[in-house]
Amino acid sequence: MTRFFVSPEELGNDNIVLTGENASHAKVLRLKVGEQVLVCDGEGRECLCAVVDSGWNLEVLDRRESVSEPAVQVSVYMAFPKADKLEHVVQKATELGVYEIVAFPSARCVSKPDEKSLKKKLERWQKIAASAAEQSGRGRIPRVVILPSFAEALKRGAESELPMLFYENEQSTTLHMALNSGQWKSAALLTGPEGGLEEKEVRQAMDAGWKVCTLGKRILRCETAPLCALSAVMYAAGEF
Amino acid sequence: MTRFFVSPEELGNDNIVLTGENASHAKVLRLKVGEQVLVCDGEGRECLCAVVDSGWNLEVLDRRESVSEPAVQVSVYMAFPKADKLEHVVQKATELGVYEIVAFPSARCVSKPDEKSLKKKLERWQKIAASAAEQSGRGRIPRVVILPSFAEALKRGAESELPMLFYENEQSTTLHMALNSGQWKSAALLTGPEGGLEEKEVRQAMDAGWKVCTLGKRILRCETAPLCALSAVMYAAGEF
Repeated sequence: MTRFFVSPEELGNDNIVLTGENASHAKVLRLKVGEQVLVCDGEGRECLCAVVDSGWNLEVLDRRESVSEPAVQVSVYMAFPKADKLEHVVQKATELGVYEIVAFPSARCVSKPDEKSLKKKLERWQKIAASAAEQSGRGRIPRVVILPSFAEALKRGAESELPMLFYENEQSTTLHMALNSGQWKSAALLTGPEGGLEEKEVRQAMDAGWKVCTLGKRILRCETAPLCALSAVMYAAGEF
Repeated sequence: MTRFFVSPEELGNDNIVLTGENASHAKVLRLKVGEQVLVCDGEGRECLCAVVDSGWNLEVLDRRESVSEPAVQVSVYMAFPKADKLEHVVQKATELGVYEIVAFPSARCVSKPDEKSLKKKLERWQKIAASAAEQSGRGRIPRVVILPSFAEALKRGAESELPMLFYENEQSTTLHMALNSGQWKSAALLTGPEGGLEEKEVRQAMDAGWKVCTLGKRILRCETAPLCALSAVMYAAGEF
């Protein structure tokens, strides 16, 4: 079923009208009167609606919590990678059910975007998240967050129940061991840039309460690691 | 440690010499006399060697089975996707430890490459696998296999211990249920093209012995699904 995102205020109205890009999209899809669509607020609530007329007035048939959101909140914390790799991670992580994507600088980041270019990039990343949320049928659009330092990323992520950092030099603690601590509702998965994290940074994370684990005996590219970890964590959380 | 792939015959020799692309690569890396490198046959055997001279003669210090290969053989079966998506899947699946990648046509494939272009593409895919194997530190180069029909893919994959097909309309059987059948050594993960598999094809797979499972409540893109499944299966197999 076609899915449109509107603001929470609009979703709260008795009469929902598709406007702007949503209206153009509805026109392209040639939606017919009576056809059913899903309208979501991007925060987990949605309405099943029927098209009333070609002005894209919709009749609300049912209001409900989104049924496609995962039961756990998993955040991806990723040090700025080079080129357009973060776009790739935002798109794929959204499909895989990520709660939010947090990007930050770390010592070995080659890409050190300035504030102005970051503002533009953030807009683009957020658009990619919205479009991937729509295509994958999610009820929430994951937020993309930019933090100014590694220290702030450590601090913010450590507030989740299960902050885990993936490090290629860790050989004994597996993700399985880190997760085996029982029930959890929120987790943070931190991975480094192309050159990896510095040993000093990993120690700093441990001091801040992060568990350091391995993703196996093979070296994953910086854009592969967060998606591998996210897939495995969603599986372990009983999502599929 | 730098890793070079040579033929099994070359690896068997008492004296290993790097030639061709390997020699050029060694030159670029400015390897020094005495420096240690790993030489692999791409089939799971490797030698720890030391550089003897600038003609790239190597002294064999130790022969062993590769330590970075997974304990299970997981094959990715993927219907031909559009554009360069298979390149992406070959690269990422190799990093994640895939045993082989098998590509084949299915009813809704938009991309129907002819024999001539397939031959060229296969060469390219195999090169991508070799390069990803080198970078991720694998001891084996996964083979890329092309099959002429969906029926042949079903037949070949069903010979693995655990043939599993991922279908967006399956809602009850999870990957977790499908895997919970105990110990296994080989698995096949089959996913469809952009438009998905036809219901008829899914029934055909069930008749051929494939288990049909879901990858969760979100619709994954055709290039995301195999990598999500592979990550979860490797996690479930105890790889990390």
